[in-house]
Amino acid sequence: MTRSPSLRKGQQDGSRRVTMAEVAAAAAVSVPTVSKVLNGRFDVALETRERVEAVLNQSGYARGKRKRDDAPWLIDLVFPEFGPYAIEIIRGAEEAALLNKCRIAVSALSDDPKETRWLSNIGSSRTDGVILVFAELTPLHRERLKALAVPVVIVDPLGHPDPRTPSIGVTNWAGGMTATDHLIGLGHKRIGIIAGRPAMLCNQQRLDGYRAALMRAGIPVDPALIFTGAHHHPTALNAASAMLDLADPPTAIFATNDLHAMGVYEAARLHGLRLPDDLSVVGFDDIPMAEWVSPPLTTMRQPLAEMAALAINMLLGKESSELSHRIELATSLVVRSSTTPRQDRS
Amino acid sequence: MTRSPSLRKGQQDGSRRVTMAEVAAAAAVSVPTVSKVLNGRFDVALETRERVEAVLNQSGYARGKRKRDDAPWLIDLVFPEFGPYAIEIIRGAEEAALLNKCRIAVSALSDDPKETRWLSNIGSSRTDGVILVFAELTPLHRERLKALAVPVVIVDPLGHPDPRTPSIGVTNWAGGMTATDHLIGLGHKRIGIIAGRPAMLCNQQRLDGYRAALMRAGIPVDPALIFTGAHHHPTALNAASAMLDLADPPTAIFATNDLHAMGVYEAARLHGLRLPDDLSVVGFDDIPMAEWVSPPLTTMRQPLAEMAALAINMLLGKESSELSHRIELATSLVVRSSTTPRQDRS
Repeated sequence: MTRSPSLRKGQQDGSRRVTMAEVAAAAAVSVPTVSKVLNGRFDVALETRERVEAVLNQSGYARGKRKRDDAPWLIDLVFPEFGPYAIEIIRGAEEAALLNKCRIAVSALSDDPKETRWLSNIGSSRTDGVILVFAELTPLHRERLKALAVPVVIVDPLGHPDPRTPSIGVTNWAGGMTATDHLIGLGHKRIGIIAGRPAMLCNQQRLDGYRAALMRAGIPVDPALIFTGAHHHPTALNAASAMLDLADPPTAIFATNDLHAMGVYEAARLHGLRLPDDLSVVGFDDIPMAEWVSPPLTTMRQPLAEMAALAINMLLGKESSELSHRIELATSLVVRSSTTPRQDRS
Repeated sequence: MTRSPSLRKGQQDGSRRVTMAEVAAAAAVSVPTVSKVLNGRFDVALETRERVEAVLNQSGYARGKRKRDDAPWLIDLVFPEFGPYAIEIIRGAEEAALLNKCRIAVSALSDDPKETRWLSNIGSSRTDGVILVFAELTPLHRERLKALAVPVVIVDPLGHPDPRTPSIGVTNWAGGMTATDHLIGLGHKRIGIIAGRPAMLCNQQRLDGYRAALMRAGIPVDPALIFTGAHHHPTALNAASAMLDLADPPTAIFATNDLHAMGVYEAARLHGLRLPDDLSVVGFDDIPMAEWVSPPLTTMRQPLAEMAALAINMLLGKESSELSHRIELATSLVVRSSTTPRQDRS
């Protein structure tokens, strides 16, 4: 593979910089092909790419050290869908990118895991890094991204994060406990939880934090007050309605995301209950609308914009992605008007 | 300027394609400089750019007809801020872009009109088009964009659209009338309006539609029920509170955007009123949260995603931006649970 002695020399002696032409000669390809591989373009046969990559790695070619006065880097932000938290992620990424003379490209994942239009779009032009938001990598996606040789960071994975990919999440377990502690501190003892699908790690963690808080306070965990499986607003509405129909209904509900909290709001309204006097509600996320709904929602804040900014900085090499493969940022309780001390029911 | 006779020939006889080298020779610049100008890069002196542009135009160089099997086009989506409607615009743009093998880059405008970091970012790399969302072009921005020679489309301008730039808006006047007619049809006669700053054309149009609907129904226009100047949630909350404190308060309020409607919701809650029985509310926009708030908001839908898709297609030449410098899409009433027939007050 290493036909040119100068490549070995380049590897051992950092004082001389290996040229692209030398890499091309050693890999028996043209200089433009080496350039394509270096730019993460996808229109190079996998076999050829691997051969070039091998030479690049072997030769100590100074890749990934583009001059900062070059054209701005382009970082791809990929969402499973443009949900309510997407705009906060985009805002944080864009701010961090601008400070670093970077541009942000956005794409949505298709529901079909085999559908990789975004990947081929990324691959056939330039990308300097990919941030996958709230997404699990399918084996196909992982293989394609590996072939692109592009750095990837995952923000808040829904499932078990793969230790091979750096990821940024939040302290979900602690957040679940803090939210529940807040309600306990207000005197509530019948506290329901609308938790998302337990297959998502974050939901399981928040639910476990809820259970831990109740147990620490000596409050029995009542299975009738635990609903798992909500994944959109109508499911949460129905689950909350069922709890409010119980003979001994909850006086407070912890919804493990803000959209579910909106479902609880609507269930309360349809039951003729007033918030927060008849029912306290805590959400999770602090999406922008949490501040504007009526009553303004008490919620656990995920620092979504900060998570995105951190991902940008990791991709730009400002944070060592090699040292910290999983970073968890802290959540914080934002108290607004949807929670109040437990009222005695007449 | 046209030193090479072959350029004139190229202009007159479409059968032979003028080459970049010929353009470079005629403009007395290098081929890479012509390439930079063609790619809309900003790192070429204005004087040089203008000389190259003149030769390009004169020679009939087949620009703007990049092969579709080239690297995906990159279109810049520029927002004044990432507000609640931004995600719908991004979603629509991204879907249309993906169908056309395009990528979308997003940027936020700085509050400072002289701050053109996004412009220099765009300018120093490649862009194939710019969509400005909800923004007025300052003279500085206009000049810079002109120098970049990049096509621009404005989506829903806040002020008077400049006829020199293609723009896509909605039928705001008709929307204001439809929203008000809906309330009149439910028997409401005391109908308030929380209108945004009248300096924004859209707000003036919606207000005028409201007035026209009342006048057509023979309902007097009461200045005490008209508030102009709301530009965020707290202003709308205070304005609605003041109306609800009137001796003869409104039984319905038309908020000219959905965030203002949220302010009305909160004012009603603080006044101990129940929606919709004690107060009907209509919004404008149909941002995603309109469906999830409690009660779900009746609102005038702006087809935000469609507007963005249309802008993409205009930039890609699928819609003739030369023929239609101002396109207005229709709004439509989405009836949810925040409006109900007027109740007799006890």
